[in-house]
Amino acid sequence: MSNPDEESQHQTAPAPAPRVDLEAGQSPAPAQDESFGVGLVIRRWRREDLMRKASLGLRALSLLLSLLSFLIMACNNHGDWRDFNKYEEYRYLVGVAILSALYTGGQTFRQVHQLYFAKDLPPLKHAAAVDFVGDQVMAYFLLSSASSAIPLTNRMREGGDNVFTDSSAAAISMSLLAFLALACTSVIAGYKLSAQSFI
Amino acid sequence: MSNPDEESQHQTAPAPAPRVDLEAGQSPAPAQDESFGVGLVIRRWRREDLMRKASLGLRALSLLLSLLSFLIMACNNHGDWRDFNKYEEYRYLVGVAILSALYTGGQTFRQVHQLYFAKDLPPLKHAAAVDFVGDQVMAYFLLSSASSAIPLTNRMREGGDNVFTDSSAAAISMSLLAFLALACTSVIAGYKLSAQSFI
Repeated sequence: MSNPDEESQHQTAPAPAPRVDLEAGQSPAPAQDESFGVGLVIRRWRREDLMRKASLGLRALSLLLSLLSFLIMACNNHGDWRDFNKYEEYRYLVGVAILSALYTGGQTFRQVHQLYFAKDLPPLKHAAAVDFVGDQVMAYFLLSSASSAIPLTNRMREGGDNVFTDSSAAAISMSLLAFLALACTSVIAGYKLSAQSFI
Repeated sequence: MSNPDEESQHQTAPAPAPRVDLEAGQSPAPAQDESFGVGLVIRRWRREDLMRKASLGLRALSLLLSLLSFLIMACNNHGDWRDFNKYEEYRYLVGVAILSALYTGGQTFRQVHQLYFAKDLPPLKHAAAVDFVGDQVMAYFLLSSASSAIPLTNRMREGGDNVFTDSSAAAISMSLLAFLALACTSVIAGYKLSAQSFI
């Protein structure tokens, strides 16, 4: 499972077409439905490999966007009323961005470690369930924080744009994009979770 | 799938052990792994039946809560500044509550019809995908609208509670509860969607 290339070579050996062999002469004509099953398995491995990479990429993207959101909002202090710390919506956004960065950072680290350094180790027990619940809950938090900050920023911008409202809007956009990335990851994690019991 | 008893008889008929017929003398001892497989299939049917009922119940609950949220907020007009129509957050909440009521109403109707009147019809093509995407998107909308309305209500309540802020808080709570119900349904729909391809 962890090394698709090596295993797919194993699988292609008993093919329907008569071929000599890798080492010595094997039985040349296996049953039709066996090769069909092998094709299914190989396709499934490819799909799982693709999903693993997509999941890693989306989590890394989400980490980047959460960090950006946190940094942009945390630096958004220009004196007087233009201080993010005076508004609960913006404090909520910063808090959720920190949480999201920590969560996606941990997940990315774990996935990279699993993909490149601990290939032969089986995944942790309940990892799929933790992934799914974590992704889903973080996605909900990110959406909630962005949604709560949008009306406040809208109202401030009615009086005219300035560097404070522009930074706020940028941080909100980053949180929303991080939400989109995590929402996609949670769908992949949910698929993995329910496919697990059928292996 | 719609008639478990009939199909389980079908399953036992083509067995590896030699048997005469269903009417005439049956073979008394079926193979060990066959009865194991039948048990698995029956357990799976029970689980699917339970999920179908849980999904229907949660959608009906969500319909009720969305309707309540819509009604409470739509009646929340007490003159002067205490009019929900003057705040974009509350208008957003009402809009999403209407959408959610329409969506969950349609889904509940479809599911009740399928469960009690059209048992033998196969489910619509792509119904599982539509269910999952619809539930997930409606859950996101409900959370977003409730999140955006909470800070405004918080700020108003700092000046003292009155019937307007209390009604707003009630409508927001209903939307949040509807979100929770739909979030659970979307997990069930996601499970169904990914289990589908393995049948």
